[in-house]
Amino acid sequence: MNLWYGFVGSHPHLIRYFASPGGEPNTGYLERVRERFKRWILDTCRRPYDQQWLDYQQEIALRHTRAKKNQTDGAEETPEHIPLRYVIAFVYPITATIKQFLAKGGHATDEVEKMHDAWFKSVTLQVALWSQPYTKEGDF
Amino acid sequence: MNLWYGFVGSHPHLIRYFASPGGEPNTGYLERVRERFKRWILDTCRRPYDQQWLDYQQEIALRHTRAKKNQTDGAEETPEHIPLRYVIAFVYPITATIKQFLAKGGHATDEVEKMHDAWFKSVTLQVALWSQPYTKEGDF
Repeated sequence: MNLWYGFVGSHPHLIRYFASPGGEPNTGYLERVRERFKRWILDTCRRPYDQQWLDYQQEIALRHTRAKKNQTDGAEETPEHIPLRYVIAFVYPITATIKQFLAKGGHATDEVEKMHDAWFKSVTLQVALWSQPYTKEGDF
Repeated sequence: MNLWYGFVGSHPHLIRYFASPGGEPNTGYLERVRERFKRWILDTCRRPYDQQWLDYQQEIALRHTRAKKNQTDGAEETPEHIPLRYVIAFVYPITATIKQFLAKGGHATDEVEKMHDAWFKSVTLQVALWSQPYTKEGDF
């Protein structure tokens, strides 16, 4: 969590989605997103893939687009949209960096491999779902 | 390569993109795609990320959409479009299954890990690029 926030914060082309046109990061917005991000990590590990989960996937998707990005947190001065290419590229860092944390729980190496594989599969599935509101009619 | 073709061939919802409305796979089309798929694996491992590479990424993207899917191989009776969600989901199997082949070359375990990581990063990047023709104006 802190690793990922550090990663976003250290890249100007990423932090700007949390910042005003003048470049000042909106700390209140960052904090609220951080709480949802923590929740998302736990949900990814624990939640069953039911209709409620699917509905919330759609909500997450919309909150990355101009349909809902700033509305939830009243962060009206930040950019209104996260480009889809960034959302897809996110599969890599969020998967490559999680392994060290999965390895900290005292599980056997092959269990850690299986958890990492399940994480990778779930993140890929979620990003596929999140692409829906970005996609042209009939192309999703 | 054969593993992936077997994977596609064993799933009716995947093989149908190579098949006529009656369900008969188009073997000529499958063979031509197989040759390009082989080329793509080598390109992913070897090619520098230059303008020519980027232009060909766009061509690959278009060949999954109604803009160009069947045109190249004259496979007019097969579905004209691969849904974006399938293209994104493809990151997982194509990455999870490559490792066993990377491990066959006699490299040390940490070298295999690095090659696998580079493969994963490249495939994710390419899928992000391939999403462009699917995406609404201004949302990519």
